[in-house]
Amino acid sequence: MSYYFEDVSSGQSFESASRTITNYEIMSFAGLTGDFAPAHTDDVYASKSVFGKRVAHGSLVISLAMGLLQRLELFSGTVIAPLDMTWKFGKPVLLGDTIRVRMTIQEKRETSKPDRGLLVRAIEVLNQEGDVVQSGTSALLVRRRPA
Amino acid sequence: MSYYFEDVSSGQSFESASRTITNYEIMSFAGLTGDFAPAHTDDVYASKSVFGKRVAHGSLVISLAMGLLQRLELFSGTVIAPLDMTWKFGKPVLLGDTIRVRMTIQEKRETSKPDRGLLVRAIEVLNQEGDVVQSGTSALLVRRRPA
Amino acid sequence: MSYYFEDVSSGQSFESASRTITNYEIMSFAGLTGDFAPAHTDDVYASKSVFGKRVAHGSLVISLAMGLLQRLELFSGTVIAPLDMTWKFGKPVLLGDTIRVRMTIQEKRETSKPDRGLLVRAIEVLNQEGDVVQSGTSALLVRRRPA
Amino acid sequence: MSYYFEDVSSGQSFESASRTITNYEIMSFAGLTGDFAPAHTDDVYASKSVFGKRVAHGSLVISLAMGLLQRLELFSGTVIAPLDMTWKFGKPVLLGDTIRVRMTIQEKRETSKPDRGLLVRAIEVLNQEGDVVQSGTSALLVRRRPA
Amino acid sequence: MSYYFEDVSSGQSFESASRTITNYEIMSFAGLTGDFAPAHTDDVYASKSVFGKRVAHGSLVISLAMGLLQRLELFSGTVIAPLDMTWKFGKPVLLGDTIRVRMTIQEKRETSKPDRGLLVRAIEVLNQEGDVVQSGTSALLVRRRPA
Amino acid sequence: MSYYFEDVSSGQSFESASRTITNYEIMSFAGLTGDFAPAHTDDVYASKSVFGKRVAHGSLVISLAMGLLQRLELFSGTVIAPLDMTWKFGKPVLLGDTIRVRMTIQEKRETSKPDRGLLVRAIEVLNQEGDVVQSGTSALLVRRRPA
Repeated sequence: MSYYFEDVSSGQSFESASRTITNYEIMSFAGLTGDFAPAHTDDVYASKSVFGKRVAHGSLVISLAMGLLQRLELFSGTVIAPLDMTWKFGKPVLLGDTIRVRMTIQEKRETSKPDRGLLVRAIEVLNQEGDVVQSGTSALLVRRRPA
Repeated sequence: MSYYFEDVSSGQSFESASRTITNYEIMSFAGLTGDFAPAHTDDVYASKSVFGKRVAHGSLVISLAMGLLQRLELFSGTVIAPLDMTWKFGKPVLLGDTIRVRMTIQEKRETSKPDRGLLVRAIEVLNQEGDVVQSGTSALLVRRRPA
Repeated sequence: MSYYFEDVSSGQSFESASRTITNYEIMSFAGLTGDFAPAHTDDVYASKSVFGKRVAHGSLVISLAMGLLQRLELFSGTVIAPLDMTWKFGKPVLLGDTIRVRMTIQEKRETSKPDRGLLVRAIEVLNQEGDVVQSGTSALLVRRRPA
Repeated sequence: MSYYFEDVSSGQSFESASRTITNYEIMSFAGLTGDFAPAHTDDVYASKSVFGKRVAHGSLVISLAMGLLQRLELFSGTVIAPLDMTWKFGKPVLLGDTIRVRMTIQEKRETSKPDRGLLVRAIEVLNQEGDVVQSGTSALLVRRRPA
Repeated sequence: MSYYFEDVSSGQSFESASRTITNYEIMSFAGLTGDFAPAHTDDVYASKSVFGKRVAHGSLVISLAMGLLQRLELFSGTVIAPLDMTWKFGKPVLLGDTIRVRMTIQEKRETSKPDRGLLVRAIEVLNQEGDVVQSGTSALLVRRRPA
Repeated sequence: MSYYFEDVSSGQSFESASRTITNYEIMSFAGLTGDFAPAHTDDVYASKSVFGKRVAHGSLVISLAMGLLQRLELFSGTVIAPLDMTWKFGKPVLLGDTIRVRMTIQEKRETSKPDRGLLVRAIEVLNQEGDVVQSGTSALLVRRRPA
């Protein structure tokens, strides 16, 4: 049910499910990566910080955003490889925030190989207030529909 | 013991510890993010793929790389915020590969505020063969040494 | 210290320890199974739902109930295999509920093999109010005491 | 994109993705449930057992099967509640086995409320050899398409 | 079913279940504690070490030993508090080793309060070869049988 | 950047980072070790206990303390092995407490081998109030600086 290169068009938009970033996500990401910076793991420190509570790791938000997108299974049978990515850390994502992802096909590019094409996706991560907290672009090499 | 903006110079390089990407990392990242694509979670599929075994998620490698860097505690007391990032997915990272990170200060930039500066870090993720598997840049807003 | 088929009688009842279903259980079960439905993982959605908070996955409650029973070690050295099971999802189990299990030997049945017998266990999962939230039966093939 | 009661018909079949049951799944399920029986956690014991290796907990397989089904998102926006379930533990599922789920709409039943209907789903869990290792039925209360 | 102070006698011995220390235990302990030393997390390093493979953290073995003892539920309803402990790290515990615990009541001591007594337990952790890999003593304040 | 035997002197003190013991740590430690005693896992029980809330496992605190110390990387390249340890469980550590570790070199001892020495470290675990909750000593065999 996933899309071939031909099946999506520039400007087309998709929205992921939402999920809350609980203590579980933050602490298991700390444990997975070894990043135990006090902003993520120390309530005393965090309560005195400008945010007043612990924040999610920047790359945790990237990871959850990519996972939310993947769950849409848009290109799960047709993707060949991820290529370049750019990313902007906008606003902090706090413990308890609920995020979702809006993805828009920004550009479709031919490649030298006729069986595939390049999709540049604009990605926005939004919190429960609708604010864009992180955003970026991610290029995907995707198969064309077999002749 | 962490560095202020003045304490590092352009071209200066740092190398992280190494760690092996075991089944634990791949499966707990699948569980954390919800990305259960067969390349990561299905041995039968993976054994027939071009790589012959399961591969790490792209953003798992980003996350582990950022964690390996953070464990160096270079800017843990002086960082204000991460800013822009660019990333290139080069070679696949397979189950059982051992990665480490080389970070080089690429550029030091003044900002409008006198108490801080911008460090652009070039980041390379290397596997056990010494191949660069992923690479990119990541900007960090870092405090200047208080007068 | 575990029971042989002869050691329990129809109508005999056992009660497990209690445990609270925290966010840890729900999120790690979501991650283990890939079931990230918003009722389990989205606080915004859940706060507007009829329950007002996130609920435990149905099969998480089955799993925790079976684990609570296993911790009694009643048949740990004598069980041969689990057989048929029936299950009824009664009331929702909410984040923060504390559950325990009451198990009653409902039926003892001879089998064609003389070294074993079939125990049908009636299982009730109760919450902190004493309400039965899930219930069912589970058959177990258990060794007879060696002659 | 999920189905209303009217959208599926008796006999219609769906197949899930596949996933391998690695040591991660077995050990994290042991930890989640507290069921550390030696068949799941002791390699020395398991290597001498009839299966020659550790086996998955019965309710781990139920949980993974339900998760694989949920990932199809067939009824994610229309399900009201799960009701009765029956289950048969057929063959052991060993460490390293790769499972998938085949679900068939077995029966559609009217209920007293006009806005919903009951779907009885026949569920089969298959291993990498195509053998049915567990199977059962699970009833789901699903919304009808709003008039 | 747990023991009061009066119910055990000096010299009495108990043996726990066995469990294998898999990659799951080592990596989740690294993540829980933040101890990612290469002896625990780097296969390349470990394969060149004197042990030839990764080793369990010392305090992981303490923790698993205490957990194996607790699963015997000897004093679960009667313990008041753990007191002093001594410990000796004897032999390394390698990835894949299977451990069990032998506990012997070494000493029973009166305390100033008549409702309790002190049990000094000698604890030995054995591997699959029967070698004692770690050992120590652990004092427990335990209730006396109510008059 | 780690210390050789010669590099530290008796009386020298080091302080670790702080971290909060959240529900994640307690529940994942319960799952790792199999110790699900109600003081750790049952909110109803815990709310009626003398502490009013769930407490951390004693060996969880040991493990987190050792991890906090290891993150200082003081002896990461020079340690040969841990030897004896003594430990005192002073005050309970409650869910939500924030701990840090103070380590003081208590004694430096020559050994028969000229390439190494024994460091006895005094270890104190402090909570957010500055109270010492657990304490002990831990001996470490550490390399001397190569001639």
